[in-house]
Amino acid sequence: MSLKEIPKKLVVIGGGYVGTELGTAFANFGTEVTFLEGAKDILGGFEKQMTQVVKKRLKKKGVTIVTEAVAKGVEETKDGVKVSYEAKGKEETLEADYVLVTVGRKPNTEEIGLEQVGIELDERGRVKTDKQCRTSVDNIYAIGDITAGPPLAHKASYEGKIAAEVISGEKSEVDYIGVPAVAFTEPELATVGLSEQEAKDKGFNVKVGKFPFAANGRALALNESDGFLKLITRKEDGLVLGGQIAGPNASDMISEIGLAVESGMTAEDIALTIHAHPTLGEITMEAAEVGLGKPVHML
Amino acid sequence: MSLKEIPKKLVVIGGGYVGTELGTAFANFGTEVTFLEGAKDILGGFEKQMTQVVKKRLKKKGVTIVTEAVAKGVEETKDGVKVSYEAKGKEETLEADYVLVTVGRKPNTEEIGLEQVGIELDERGRVKTDKQCRTSVDNIYAIGDITAGPPLAHKASYEGKIAAEVISGEKSEVDYIGVPAVAFTEPELATVGLSEQEAKDKGFNVKVGKFPFAANGRALALNESDGFLKLITRKEDGLVLGGQIAGPNASDMISEIGLAVESGMTAEDIALTIHAHPTLGEITMEAAEVGLGKPVHML
Repeated sequence: MSLKEIPKKLVVIGGGYVGTELGTAFANFGTEVTFLEGAKDILGGFEKQMTQVVKKRLKKKGVTIVTEAVAKGVEETKDGVKVSYEAKGKEETLEADYVLVTVGRKPNTEEIGLEQVGIELDERGRVKTDKQCRTSVDNIYAIGDITAGPPLAHKASYEGKIAAEVISGEKSEVDYIGVPAVAFTEPELATVGLSEQEAKDKGFNVKVGKFPFAANGRALALNESDGFLKLITRKEDGLVLGGQIAGPNASDMISEIGLAVESGMTAEDIALTIHAHPTLGEITMEAAEVGLGKPVHML
Repeated sequence: MSLKEIPKKLVVIGGGYVGTELGTAFANFGTEVTFLEGAKDILGGFEKQMTQVVKKRLKKKGVTIVTEAVAKGVEETKDGVKVSYEAKGKEETLEADYVLVTVGRKPNTEEIGLEQVGIELDERGRVKTDKQCRTSVDNIYAIGDITAGPPLAHKASYEGKIAAEVISGEKSEVDYIGVPAVAFTEPELATVGLSEQEAKDKGFNVKVGKFPFAANGRALALNESDGFLKLITRKEDGLVLGGQIAGPNASDMISEIGLAVESGMTAEDIALTIHAHPTLGEITMEAAEVGLGKPVHML
């Protein structure tokens, strides 16, 4: 059934970023929204501290989140739909006007004749490529969601540029040190490079600089004080390994940290850059100062 | 006369960033606003291309801008005020409910006994300081609006940190290569480092990468497609000399360019950094690509 009006009740199958962004929009329209998420938490891929900020806001909007819930089927009724799912070993059902399915994306590599030209796929059906985006067939290149890695538009367009350069004879190759990811939730989430846990797992001595939006004048003026920024650095020399932001305009703010990660900059490089007052960018500067042990606006 | 209610008519003396920000706010409340600006254009300090974007928006709001107009006096009337001014050699008057004076800020260095301790002032009454924020008296330091340079909060707090470091024995000194300036107009304006003209005046071979907000998906989704981003680089090697932004969230976006200017990065450093899609940060990346002669989304 396709959407004819703003639903009173909506079940969203999948609490990834697509489901959460769309579900939030419907909640803002006044719809009673229930998320069914198979994993232990919504917004997989973002760390728990970040998703907590979004979940607090979703709760205020009256959104219900059911985790570890596997959808089993959807039945069309006279007035809408009946969704059956399993949660904690029990079969449950939910009635709603509509159901929105936001899971199950997969690379479309089956019916396009790849086997006829001899292009190899990996175990998940994705086209195998090397660091120059070259497939197992020398003069055929592949980029984006049909290859390994996060299915994000900017990862695809980056690979497109690399592939074009390689084809035109340049010695380019991909380097995924700083692939950002953004969720247009409320507030926005953004991450680039390594998270604290990822950096520890890779064996780095990690120093984290964390600064809250609530201590920033611009955030208070925007009436958007939920959230924080975390700058992940290598303890020995302050090398910026990554950053995570949960807060207003996180999608704009992540660019600066992305540039720092990509270019091998340090927390001191960021801390010594004058950031305009009153702007959200001061949060990035102050997180760097926290990491260096000399924050001005935090105890 | 102090403000008791939202005025129907308001005269703003001074079209600098303070006057323009406040005047815009009143225009949004429905006030009929007239700016009286002494110079040839409002928003002095920002280049003409940028102020054009703001003026277009102010015009839509019904704001009147009178340039090369010098206020001569204000007279209180029964219902409000009568403002007299001179423009193009003619005396004119304007009647309004209120007048807002946003000009005439000056350093308050006259009555605080500076002459008694022997602190030297410059010809404009500002405290003379060296690169370590030290005044002419060895153990007295000065920062912020009472010293030379732009009277901006972040310039003051930057100097405060440098002075504190010097006093505590570190060999720090100020470096003003990347002082940003932001105006919270509609849309926002932001600049850091050198403008195109400033770079030329300093003798640089300049290469400009300019990209419009109208060619960015996120800007279109925000329904905010007015404006542009200019990245100013040295032609020989792409060194980022400065950047100017007129557009939504310019105040957030300027941080990345500030970091690039401060850290001696090149257009290629920015162009090769993956910027999340769909975000405004892609505009910075694409402006860098324009400068390098290989833009993807512009002819």
